[in-house]
Amino acid sequence: MPESRNRVWLNGRLLSPEDAAVPIAAHGVLYGDGLFETVRVYAGHPFRLDRHLERMLAGARVLGLDLVWGPQALATAVCDTVAGCGLREAAVRITALRGVGPPGPDIAECGEAIVFITARAYAGYAERIYREGARSVIASTLQSERSPLCHVKSVSYLNHVLARTEARQAGADEALLLNSRGELAEGSVSNVFARFGDRLVTPPPESGCLPGIARREVIELAPGLGLQVQETPLMLSEFLDADEALLTNSLMEVAPLVTVGAHAIGGGIPGKAAVDCREAYLGRVAESSAEA
Amino acid sequence: MPESRNRVWLNGRLLSPEDAAVPIAAHGVLYGDGLFETVRVYAGHPFRLDRHLERMLAGARVLGLDLVWGPQALATAVCDTVAGCGLREAAVRITALRGVGPPGPDIAECGEAIVFITARAYAGYAERIYREGARSVIASTLQSERSPLCHVKSVSYLNHVLARTEARQAGADEALLLNSRGELAEGSVSNVFARFGDRLVTPPPESGCLPGIARREVIELAPGLGLQVQETPLMLSEFLDADEALLTNSLMEVAPLVTVGAHAIGGGIPGKAAVDCREAYLGRVAESSAEA
Repeated sequence: MPESRNRVWLNGRLLSPEDAAVPIAAHGVLYGDGLFETVRVYAGHPFRLDRHLERMLAGARVLGLDLVWGPQALATAVCDTVAGCGLREAAVRITALRGVGPPGPDIAECGEAIVFITARAYAGYAERIYREGARSVIASTLQSERSPLCHVKSVSYLNHVLARTEARQAGADEALLLNSRGELAEGSVSNVFARFGDRLVTPPPESGCLPGIARREVIELAPGLGLQVQETPLMLSEFLDADEALLTNSLMEVAPLVTVGAHAIGGGIPGKAAVDCREAYLGRVAESSAEA
Repeated sequence: MPESRNRVWLNGRLLSPEDAAVPIAAHGVLYGDGLFETVRVYAGHPFRLDRHLERMLAGARVLGLDLVWGPQALATAVCDTVAGCGLREAAVRITALRGVGPPGPDIAECGEAIVFITARAYAGYAERIYREGARSVIASTLQSERSPLCHVKSVSYLNHVLARTEARQAGADEALLLNSRGELAEGSVSNVFARFGDRLVTPPPESGCLPGIARREVIELAPGLGLQVQETPLMLSEFLDADEALLTNSLMEVAPLVTVGAHAIGGGIPGKAAVDCREAYLGRVAESSAEA
């Protein structure tokens, strides 16, 4: 048996990727009406899968989308997909799209949701990010902090795609989005933290951030590292004055952020909290795998 | 030959709808990264197709998306699709999705755009809308007027899907979106006008509205009907005091709007400008078909 054979889970069946397609009449395709989650698998164990599925379910309630498969069935499907791909270190994406319906953005007559799960070999972010720190720009596009969709990881992701494109064009690793009040909201694919002395500050949901799973992990871990966590709005000017800054997401885990445009944070050198938090994070990963 | 046989145009080929699917790895599917247009076909002639394609091209520039097919090729494809379906009175949707790419919202390595065109028999909106007027609610979700995406008809449409769902749940025909300053921006599938005496006011692009094709038509037609058009921000309170209100889109053409929640506009009865504008609009349709 080959070590890595690619399989996609689609509505309950494991398929070859080339057979995994969705009908063009699915509202997920026509109107970006759907949800996704990205989960890191360490040594065969999906980390915090329960929390990812919980968030997806919360998003489904906002969208009025019946996911068809319950959390237990989806968790099994994730493991089947990872095993089907012959992977141990992986990144998994779970996507749920609103099903086929009549034209127009009315959801009432849409058929069953289309759910698919993909896995790919993933050994971690580029080491450079941890060693040198990530570089960022401020996106020209804003986060709409008063939209309920801020808190939902939806496939209507284009605003963040545009932000990310700006980062790439500037040769940066990440784009930071401000909200309409000028507060820092989040990165295009990450949450943001700033350390001031022993205070670790992160934007609250009201600033327009996604409730990140890695963000929550850091919030839980930080007190044990002598850091006092505050979910408080952060104006960009305050953020730039931080002693150090951190980015979190489920694939990046915890990484130092050292520049915003031409401005260096914490002297442009990765700080200690980033190192400590990542170490603690990986400790949690190890514990979680041992428990499983 | 049967009168109506359904055909979908997908990347240059006419297919049966059941064969029209897109790969799950297309970024259009994964990240709502794509564009669409809805065009009305009258007696076999797509109305203002040039303007729809112009808007799609403008959107493609914002997204950095190469549509692959030029306006002339797409125009031909629209006609082929309509003819392939055996239709004369139709609604056509043109969709362009960013192609297959590696996971993550980076666009650099995505393959060719996926373009598809669908047509369906369409004889017009429900007559009730013109006779009695449309009923609306104010959406709880906002329009983010400072996003460049306001002016792009993208498939990241979920904010408007949520707004529309609110309207349907309230038994209304349309949801109106306000921007972060409390100005009226647009409807979930329409643009909005308000008449005050002989002034016809519509939110400017800066209020966060899509540059609607039917909106433009009404702006061009109104002076000939003795109406002075102003693109000026409209606070909700001002809007509610209008003598009458109108909705426009390419399928609805021009329709009276008579209520916003429990509030009646213009006594809750369709106004004369709505009737005049629609008549003039249909005159343009007739001219345009005669020219073709």
